[in-house]
Amino acid sequence: MATAYAVMPGTTARVLDRIEAASAAHQARWLDWLRIPSISAQPDHAADCRAAAEFARAALQEIGFAASLRETAGHPVVLAHHPGPGGAAPHLLFYGHYDVQPPEPLELWTSQPFEPAVVDGPHGTRVVARGAVDDKGQVAMWLGALRAWAEETGGLPVRATVLIEGEEEIGSVNLEPFLAANRDELKADIAVISDTGMWDIDTPAITTGLRGLVYTQVVLKAAARDLHSGMFGGSALNPINALARALAALRDDTGRIAIPGFYDGVREVPAEQAAQWAELGFDEAAFLGNIGLSVPAGEAGRGGLERLWARPTCDINGIWGGYSGPGAKTVIAAEAGAKVSFRLVPGQDPEAIMAAFRRFMQAHVPADAKLEITELGVGPGIEVASDSRFVRAARRALAEEYGRPAVLIGCGGSIPVVGSMRRLLGLDSLLMGFGLDDDQVHGPNEKFELRCFRHGMRSHARLLGLLAGA
Amino acid sequence: MATAYAVMPGTTARVLDRIEAASAAHQARWLDWLRIPSISAQPDHAADCRAAAEFARAALQEIGFAASLRETAGHPVVLAHHPGPGGAAPHLLFYGHYDVQPPEPLELWTSQPFEPAVVDGPHGTRVVARGAVDDKGQVAMWLGALRAWAEETGGLPVRATVLIEGEEEIGSVNLEPFLAANRDELKADIAVISDTGMWDIDTPAITTGLRGLVYTQVVLKAAARDLHSGMFGGSALNPINALARALAALRDDTGRIAIPGFYDGVREVPAEQAAQWAELGFDEAAFLGNIGLSVPAGEAGRGGLERLWARPTCDINGIWGGYSGPGAKTVIAAEAGAKVSFRLVPGQDPEAIMAAFRRFMQAHVPADAKLEITELGVGPGIEVASDSRFVRAARRALAEEYGRPAVLIGCGGSIPVVGSMRRLLGLDSLLMGFGLDDDQVHGPNEKFELRCFRHGMRSHARLLGLLAGA
Repeated sequence: MATAYAVMPGTTARVLDRIEAASAAHQARWLDWLRIPSISAQPDHAADCRAAAEFARAALQEIGFAASLRETAGHPVVLAHHPGPGGAAPHLLFYGHYDVQPPEPLELWTSQPFEPAVVDGPHGTRVVARGAVDDKGQVAMWLGALRAWAEETGGLPVRATVLIEGEEEIGSVNLEPFLAANRDELKADIAVISDTGMWDIDTPAITTGLRGLVYTQVVLKAAARDLHSGMFGGSALNPINALARALAALRDDTGRIAIPGFYDGVREVPAEQAAQWAELGFDEAAFLGNIGLSVPAGEAGRGGLERLWARPTCDINGIWGGYSGPGAKTVIAAEAGAKVSFRLVPGQDPEAIMAAFRRFMQAHVPADAKLEITELGVGPGIEVASDSRFVRAARRALAEEYGRPAVLIGCGGSIPVVGSMRRLLGLDSLLMGFGLDDDQVHGPNEKFELRCFRHGMRSHARLLGLLAGA
Repeated sequence: MATAYAVMPGTTARVLDRIEAASAAHQARWLDWLRIPSISAQPDHAADCRAAAEFARAALQEIGFAASLRETAGHPVVLAHHPGPGGAAPHLLFYGHYDVQPPEPLELWTSQPFEPAVVDGPHGTRVVARGAVDDKGQVAMWLGALRAWAEETGGLPVRATVLIEGEEEIGSVNLEPFLAANRDELKADIAVISDTGMWDIDTPAITTGLRGLVYTQVVLKAAARDLHSGMFGGSALNPINALARALAALRDDTGRIAIPGFYDGVREVPAEQAAQWAELGFDEAAFLGNIGLSVPAGEAGRGGLERLWARPTCDINGIWGGYSGPGAKTVIAAEAGAKVSFRLVPGQDPEAIMAAFRRFMQAHVPADAKLEITELGVGPGIEVASDSRFVRAARRALAEEYGRPAVLIGCGGSIPVVGSMRRLLGLDSLLMGFGLDDDQVHGPNEKFELRCFRHGMRSHARLLGLLAGA
């Protein structure tokens, strides 16, 4: 029975009713998916990764997509297409990932990581499992919205492409080649990504800025072998002393990064955005108190959210060298090393910063030091549109769902796929996610609040209706 | 047949002849001792330690000493007394140790560490074994000299006490209590210690200065758990950043240590000593070239031997914190740590420096940092007499043996027993040793040159004769 697809006033309300009526089924599908230990980093879970991909493919096919697994050099990509109603309907590219982080250390879990536990918490019922929120929960949320629309209307109110990869947790190593090789097939008007968070459980948010990253490894080599500090101390170069000096020079006394040119392109936060952030009432003392700290670090004279979202940073993520066992060993090590990374903001050029960092370090180590700097990842800071028709529709959807306005926030971390989408597909992204700060992403007892899952599904259903004019 | 003991002119020459005639037997006893794996650090070698002690006790008894094993809380001390000729003969306290370092890593040895290999090298025959030089070889050397005197004359030309401990390689933890408890029994005029080295294989040396040591562990704690550098970078204290800054501040741009009061009591090298050292023609380029370096580190404007022997240092012996595995992990660690040590020179007060270091570090870490500093060992720098009758006799003995003057040198390392002897027994030390820089002490393929062993035995025999007026 082929009928013309039409979205009538009131359709969205009926879709929302369907979501409520079928909430047990939505939850059951999500939990079934969580039971598949699709750990992309562990080779003996390759078959589980494929099973999780197939689970998503089958779900998309049920919803009405033409869905298939596409092979890569690693785990397969789930790719699916739905023509939507035709005509001028917008074309959305939904992105997510079916792979999860390894669950270790297992002894810190209060339940089995791949046997989802439905338990009560301070915000009501939550689901505890690896992948509960990152990213199976967030994907299951918009899959549920698409399913409810299809069940209610026999189709979708927008044209939709779905891309669910299986290597996000291992650096998406095969994603960019896949995007580049399938540019035409991946055409769309906007990428919709929900791998982000809310401001708090009552305040929905759209993320409009992501910091970038330059991640490096520095190794400083001195003598050809470990030396006795009595016999050689005062004559032989100590690579730990030298490395500490060079690393310390990276930031000045005010916390500002001292690499020449580092701040090139960094813009001040626009007044309107600064005002919005001020209204959020960020309580940095409470934020730090949660982790046992009390004094803000970072650049002096900058606001808390500004430092977290709109200012670049330099953090030493690891350091090693010499003797670290019990007691005393009077050794001058042959070498020392560190992992050094920079969070970048939009406007900064990661390649230029990588080069400036190399020059800076070389200028700050003794002549005798052999310095090896390895680039372990670079990506720029990204701003997505904050007033496109998609953002406006999303804000309205969230406001209607929550009964209060959504806030526009930044994110201190990086979502590299946002940059890949822009660079390779020319696509802006809409970042509407429902995670909370305490979801323990990547940690033991990862969880997703059922309340977030439900509102997220409903918000996505509303968004589809609004974009279709319903 | 009790006859009055008398040393006649020419006796020393006959003692030296005896050493030559019995050289195979001296070497055999030394090698037998090396076959006992007296590794003090490893509890399953406790019986071997006792066997090595008993070996030394029996040898001393053969020479004519009243020798016994004296129990401690750890491995036993060998203590032996010989009355000598009576009268005004000087009383020497010989010190050595029968324990050895663990031989690991075994795969780097070219022969079994406890099956001495007698092999040819650039300086003639050498013995390769754990303990070859440190300290069984050097002890066997003076035991041989005592034995030759006893065999030739039926007694000894000096009064002698011998103390051979079994815990030098694990910090001599029970030695000081033993010295304190046996003060009267350990009375002597001078301690004779040969756990030191020559200037080079042709140039005998007496060591007159030893650097001291303050060894510490620093741990800096920040947040209560590891943090994501994207979510927290710019707000949360990074303990590695903070530790690197504090450690870097320890030395200024000229290599001078910046802790207030650190140089209190440090004296300039006396002109005469500086002139002697200048005559040694120390080639720092060659010294550094041997270990793959070329540019002297340490304080600017100071000479090479001065920096090694007469100036204090600060070396970071180990550092750790955060992620050090392959690839990138965007973590802000909860804590970081380092081992920091100072070599001290005579005149510096180790306790004052320990206290000043604590104050300095506390002043150089952010308010939010929880700093824990542990003292892992302190001992002062030490000067021994350089013109006593014992040193004069030793210089003459060495000059006669080698046909060239002995040089007075410093030592960048520490021999804590020298300080203990002075503090607890009021004894100065004569440091006449025969090790070489390339003996691989504590390393794989430790060796002692047979040439050094022979000259060392003969030099000690000459010293005894000279002290007796023979």
